Formats: sequence, C-alpha cells, structure tokens
Amino acid sequence: MAKKKAKITTTTSIYGNYVKWLKDKFKEIEVVPGDEIHIIQGSKDLSGNLLAQSDLGDPQSILIKLDNGYNVGIRATKTVKLEKLSGSVDLEKFQVRVPSQKKNLPEISLLATGGTIASRIDYATGGVVMAMEPEEIFASLPELFDEVSFKSVKSLFSMGSEDLASKEWSVIAKDSVEELQNGVNGVVISHGTDTMGYTAAALSFMIRDINAPVILTGAQRSSDRGSFDGASNLIAATRSAANADIASVMVAMHETSNDDYIQLSRGTRVRKNHTTRRDAFQVIGEQAFARVDNDGKLTEIHNELPRRNDLEPYANTNYDDSAALIKIYPGIPPEILEFYIDKGSKGIIVEGTGLGHVATFPAEGQESRNFMSAIERAIEDDIFIGMTSQCIYGRVHPYVYRATRTGYMAGITYLSDMISETALVKLGWVLGNYQNTDDVKEQMITNYAGEITRASIYQRRND
Amino acid sequence: MAKKKAKITTTTSIYGNYVKWLKDKFKEIEVVPGDEIHIIQGSKDLSGNLLAQSDLGDPQSILIKLDNGYNVGIRATKTVKLEKLSGSVDLEKFQVRVPSQKKNLPEISLLATGGTIASRIDYATGGVVMAMEPEEIFASLPELFDEVSFKSVKSLFSMGSEDLASKEWSVIAKDSVEELQNGVNGVVISHGTDTMGYTAAALSFMIRDINAPVILTGAQRSSDRGSFDGASNLIAATRSAANADIASVMVAMHETSNDDYIQLSRGTRVRKNHTTRRDAFQVIGEQAFARVDNDGKLTEIHNELPRRNDLEPYANTNYDDSAALIKIYPGIPPEILEFYIDKGSKGIIVEGTGLGHVATFPAEGQESRNFMSAIERAIEDDIFIGMTSQCIYGRVHPYVYRATRTGYMAGITYLSDMISETALVKLGWVLGNYQNTDDVKEQMITNYAGEITRASIYQRRND
Repeated sequence: MAKKKAKITTTTSIYGNYVKWLKDKFKEIEVVPGDEIHIIQGSKDLSGNLLAQSDLGDPQSILIKLDNGYNVGIRATKTVKLEKLSGSVDLEKFQVRVPSQKKNLPEISLLATGGTIASRIDYATGGVVMAMEPEEIFASLPELFDEVSFKSVKSLFSMGSEDLASKEWSVIAKDSVEELQNGVNGVVISHGTDTMGYTAAALSFMIRDINAPVILTGAQRSSDRGSFDGASNLIAATRSAANADIASVMVAMHETSNDDYIQLSRGTRVRKNHTTRRDAFQVIGEQAFARVDNDGKLTEIHNELPRRNDLEPYANTNYDDSAALIKIYPGIPPEILEFYIDKGSKGIIVEGTGLGHVATFPAEGQESRNFMSAIERAIEDDIFIGMTSQCIYGRVHPYVYRATRTGYMAGITYLSDMISETALVKLGWVLGNYQNTDDVKEQMITNYAGEITRASIYQRRND
Repeated sequence: MAKKKAKITTTTSIYGNYVKWLKDKFKEIEVVPGDEIHIIQGSKDLSGNLLAQSDLGDPQSILIKLDNGYNVGIRATKTVKLEKLSGSVDLEKFQVRVPSQKKNLPEISLLATGGTIASRIDYATGGVVMAMEPEEIFASLPELFDEVSFKSVKSLFSMGSEDLASKEWSVIAKDSVEELQNGVNGVVISHGTDTMGYTAAALSFMIRDINAPVILTGAQRSSDRGSFDGASNLIAATRSAANADIASVMVAMHETSNDDYIQLSRGTRVRKNHTTRRDAFQVIGEQAFARVDNDGKLTEIHNELPRRNDLEPYANTNYDDSAALIKIYPGIPPEILEFYIDKGSKGIIVEGTGLGHVATFPAEGQESRNFMSAIERAIEDDIFIGMTSQCIYGRVHPYVYRATRTGYMAGITYLSDMISETALVKLGWVLGNYQNTDDVKEQMITNYAGEITRASIYQRRND
C-alpha cells in the first residue's frame, strides 16, 4: 500500500515555552532538555538537568532538576551565564516520529494550540514536558492511521487557554479556513479547556460560510493519569472531522464521566461547568448535535443539523478588544460602566440577575447603587448594552413584569438565550465589523451560529 | 378552641411601591387603588383608575388604567395635580384579613421582603398588585392555620430582589435574630428569587449561633399562572420552619419542575441556575439538606445536618460594601483591579477560569493582558484577592500544574469549593469585621456555614 508523509509545520521546539532569547542561548551552547547545565544569574550559581518549560510556566525562568531531585526555576535576565556540563541525553529521543499514512483515507488537519491535552510527563526527568511536536499526541493512537489521513499538522502555539484571546482566535480561524480551503474533510483543534467555550464561540463567528466540521477538543485530566480523557476525546474529534455530516464549529468532550460517549456540541452553546470533571462541558439551551461511541459510531441527536455544503469558507477576524463583560452582584458600583467607557469600550455585556435585572429601584438613601441609571447614561452616550443572565440556563426578557420595562425603554438589548460568554465574543466581533450602534444592535440579535433564538422581539424598535 | 391574633407589623401600604410623597398625596385626596383619578402633569391631562405600583415599577410613575383598558404610567413631579373623581372601590376589599389562629401549635414568624411570591393580579383592574399585607399571602393557604401559629408577620420592605444589597440583608438578619430570640420555632422569609442565593449567604454569616431554621422562599412564576410555585414553596418552608430539626439558613424551592418535592438547601451552597424554571435553585457541591413532600413529610438527605440547639443567636451585620467580584474573560483589562482599588476596595473575588486561572503568560506583544501581574501589584498593596471559578461546579486550586504556582506564590487565596456569589458576600462580611489582611485571609478560609471544605492548604503560609 502506498504511503505518504503529512505536511508538518511546527513553530515550537523541544524547549517548550521559554522566551526566544533563552532558547537561542540554549541552542548556542548546544544544550537540550535533560542535559546538565550550569547557570550563573546574579548571586545565584546552580547546576542541574535542564527541563523543558511547560506552557503554563514562566517563559523566563530556567527550570532545572537538582541532584537532590527537586526542580527549581531561576528567573533569567539577558546577562545570565549558561554553560553546558554534559550531554547525557540522546537527541534522537526528541526527534519527530511522523506516522506512516495510508492513501484513500479521509483527510483532516490538526491544529495544536496547547493545553492539558498536549502535556505529558517525562519520566526520565520527572518534569512536565509539552508534546512539543503535535504529532506526538498521535503516536499513542496508531489505530487512527487506518481510518484517517493527516494532510497537515500544525502547532500554532503552546499556551494554556487562560492566556488566549482575540489575537490567537484570529490565528486559529485563519488557519482553519486555510485547511478547509485546501479541501480537507474537517479540522481538529487541540486546546486547553479553560476558555475552550470562548474560542469555540469566536471561531463560530470568525469562520464564515463553513462547509465542514471544525472541532475543538482537549483534556480535563493530564496524560499521566488513568482518567486521561484526551485520547478518547481526540479520537472522536478526529473521526467526526473526517466523517460527520455536520458543518459547524463544535466541541468534542465527554458526555458523561465515563468513556462511553463523546458529545459533539455547537460552538456557541457550550460551557465548562466543572473545574475537573471529564463531562464538564455542558450544552446550554439545546441538545448536543451528536454523540460518538468508542467504535466511532456517530448518533445524531439534534434535529436541525447544519450539513456539509459547497460554500467557500472565509475568515472574518475583525475584532474589537474593547468589548466587555460585567457580572452584576448586589451593591456593584455603577461607575464600573464609566471605567469601561473611559477605556474606549463601545459595547458591554451586562450579566444580570434572573430574567436580566440590575438594581433599578434601590431603597431611599441607596441611590448610588442604581445601576439602571448608569446604563441609561451609557446608552445616551451611544454605548451598546446587551443583557444576559448569570443564571446560565434560560432566557432573559423584559416583558414579565408589567411595570418594569425601564431597561427595555432605555434601549438595553436583551439577548434572549445567548450565553454570556458567547455574547461577549460575538460583541467583540460585531464591534470589529460595525461602527454604527443601530447596526451593532441589529447584528447582535441576528442569529449567526445558533447562538440566539426567538430574539427579535427584544430589541426596541424606532416606533 | 381558643384563638389569638398574630402580631402584625407592616411598613407598606395598599399603594404598593410609590414614593412616600406620592402616597401622601393619594392619602390627602382620599384616593385608593381602583378609584378614578384625574392627573395633570405639565402638558399631560389624563384620567383613569389608579393602580397600585408593583415592586418592580417606577415609584414615581403614577399607574392608571384608561377607559380603553390600557394601563399607562405618568412620571410625576412634586407639582403634579391630583383630583379624585369617584370612589368606586370598597375600601373593605383592601382590609387586612388576619386568619384566626389556634393555640398549642408550633410558632413561627414570617418576614416579607417582596418579590414575585408577593405579587398578585388584581382582576378588577387588570394591574399587578403587590400583596401589600404579607398575610394576604396566607389567605389562600388556610390549611396552614391548623398546623402552625404565626407569632409575628412583618413586611420589611416590598422590593424586587435585584434591588437588595447589604443594607437590606442587615435588616433581615436583625429581624430574624429578634424572632429567634423571641423563641419561635423558625423564621420564614419571602424573597424575590433573583438574588435569593446572595441573601441566603449573607444571612448565613450575619446570623451567628443560629439555633433553629431560617428559611428563604419565593416564586419563579407569578400567582396568576397555573404553574405558580410560591404556594407550595411557602407551605413547605413554613412547615419546615416549624418542625425541621435543622439549625441553618436555608432556601426552600422546588426540587424538580413538578410539585412533588420542595428542597431545603444550605444557604451558602445554592444558586439560581435558570431564569424561569421552578427547579432553578441548585445545590452546588453537596447534597440538599432535605426534601419535603406535599403532605409535609420531611426526608433528610444530607448526612451532616446542623441540629437545633441551645445557642443564643445574635446578629453580626458588619459589612464592607467595597468587596467586589470580577468575572474573568479573555482580554479583560487588568486595570479593572485598579478601578476597584481606587474606589477603596480592600478585597476582590476573582472569578477565574477552570481551576482558578487568569491570563498569566500571554503571548509576546500581549503583555497588557497580563492579569496576574496586576493581581501581584494589588497584593503588594495589601488588597485581599480570593480566587473562585466561573465553572460554578468543582474546586479551584493552584497545585495541578507544576510550573504554575505563580498565583499561589503571589499570595492569592484559593477558595476551594466556595461558590463565587457566596465568596463575595463572605468577603464583604469579613472585611466588615477585620482590618488586617492576614486576618481576612485566615477568616476567608475558615468554614463558617458549610461554604468551604478542605481549604486550609490553599493559603500561602508565612513559611
């Protein structure tokens, strides 16, 4: 059977998450992780085995394992003196092993961005080592290579997802579109779980005219643990990218806390609702799109699936970082709106209580808590105010209490069943594309990617 | 059988939520809701039947029902001219009906604060009318008067719960303690659902040495709807206040979306997780204390129930309103910490992502997003920073990623399984009682009311 090589593009190195000038110094003295190194930094003088820096570590701290077994980090300045003491590690160990690939299999592409799914324990040194080359993730999953061919495997960056924001979303969106334009069946993105929901929402708006699956996946447990969920999530994501007849940005994570099913959820309706459980990702306000079992069998659940199609995908990565999100709490100072407006924000998502409330009629003597008055002033200043609920589940709307349409009359846009995190991301994207506040309002209540339903009645019309 | 009257104390009136000077004007011309009234306000000249103002309405807008059936609100200034046109409504209709009470029944007290549970539709006028006298709530529940005697029924205020904050929590706490000191079996507090979780947490800290049940209850659906849940919640709350052997602040709301069971939940561990469902209130991180069926049968669920006892309850209502809560999102400007510090805040709860993360190692060129640096500066300025998770479920902790103890080393206090809303309220209460930041840290990780477990390892010790 004929075999071919995947196109491999990597931007990281065996050193992991060190700053570039430190990596350059390591290369200059030909030291790699595992080698013994001597470090002089100011008054500190230490020797030990160099460790790769994890994606969550300080990129300027040199990590070494001391003779006594402890790991220490030495924060380096550019005057640090480094010396190689020995070369105990076989460089071969760090070579990329690209699995052989078969022909006539559905082609997908993998984009790696970091996160727990990409971490592994190096038992030789005891340190956490990033899977510097993304195909290392696949090395332990040989069965995939009988089902799927990897057209392209890229490491876009190696970051904990709490460090990602719009700049990274833009990179992922553009690369995803490039792969789709190259004709792959689907794209898989490995990602930290902390902000996977935000990124999934961002890609849902930034990738326009999507024609195939773009699936984010990750791990809640690290690969050194028996409960590692990254492998089963990644297998299901890969199979679905290759074969599922769903054209959408999705998240593939555990449906329950055992390994029976992986759930495919719409990118705009998924939220990490537990810090550690493997089934942390919950679909909010609708059913999952589908579930995938261990044999790769996909069962569709949702009755209105967006199907693969002949559209030409493109990226619209315009984004206004001034979009803000404020979670309301009792006694919150209304001046926080002014803080954001002074910083140049053109739009703010207010995560209200219940059906979308903020303090509106506080008791006499407590007028300084009147948040609604501050909103009214913001709207007069042409700032977009979108209302969501901190309840997470359910809809906001202004019609339940007859006498309390104050917010509605003031011009707040009630975002119905859009979840707060998605609303924030959508607002940044809409503000990146529209300047006029009426246009922003109109776009915010226009459904782009399943993020809102039955919403149009909630915007105050000019009548 | 001997009967006695409950002590009735009310601070509201049949007019509902109008400002005092408007109520005074109504009284002056002897007009009550239902009467025809003539209003001249500037260029506006309107007549109609006066409606009571709901707790969620504008207290300065006079609501009237026009001849055509529509309700309108006229925003009044002190120069408004009012004239009574007719006296069509029998004042008797608005008289308080205090149900007769039997002797030798368990005594409880009821504190009314407003909210949907206290609203009712006046079918004569079509307007929403507050149950101005709290015992009106009981008029439709005659069966309760064979089981329970009401020692005291007070309307503390009539407000939507989104308008409540620490001032109101203090009033409720003091009144609850007074009732407990008077020897009642328990206290029931009717409350809007929006911020019921925050108030429940506040009372859990403010009522010290609690010796009996103090139970918050409310309604997700208004009393004009078939799905009104207020009656069954109130019955279960009342029965539990009278009889349950649990000394704790609790919330009594539907366990499921049918009327089978009402759940009693610990005040520090309950959250409104749906905007409209009757079972919106979910217990986070533990089991409910107990459930109550329609016959009043209470089944205990939790295996470590705090029991009724001989302590002497007292109120500690010290509270520092500068306590703040920040929900982290990708790209959040770190300067928001400075905003709060400039406003005099001595402590901030940071609702991080996942296990308690904020942007710590953003990409090169994105240093302005480094939230951890801003936290480090805040801590250097002696500001308390407590970490919770926006995941809602699960614990935060700093030990999972070997190389990312930055926040822990910086002095962030990781609050384990304390939910964000409870953490905010506890912080306000702790700051109200302690000035020294080390004391604040120590108190924040000390369990007062089941709000935190296994937490002590997460504070950085001075070693």
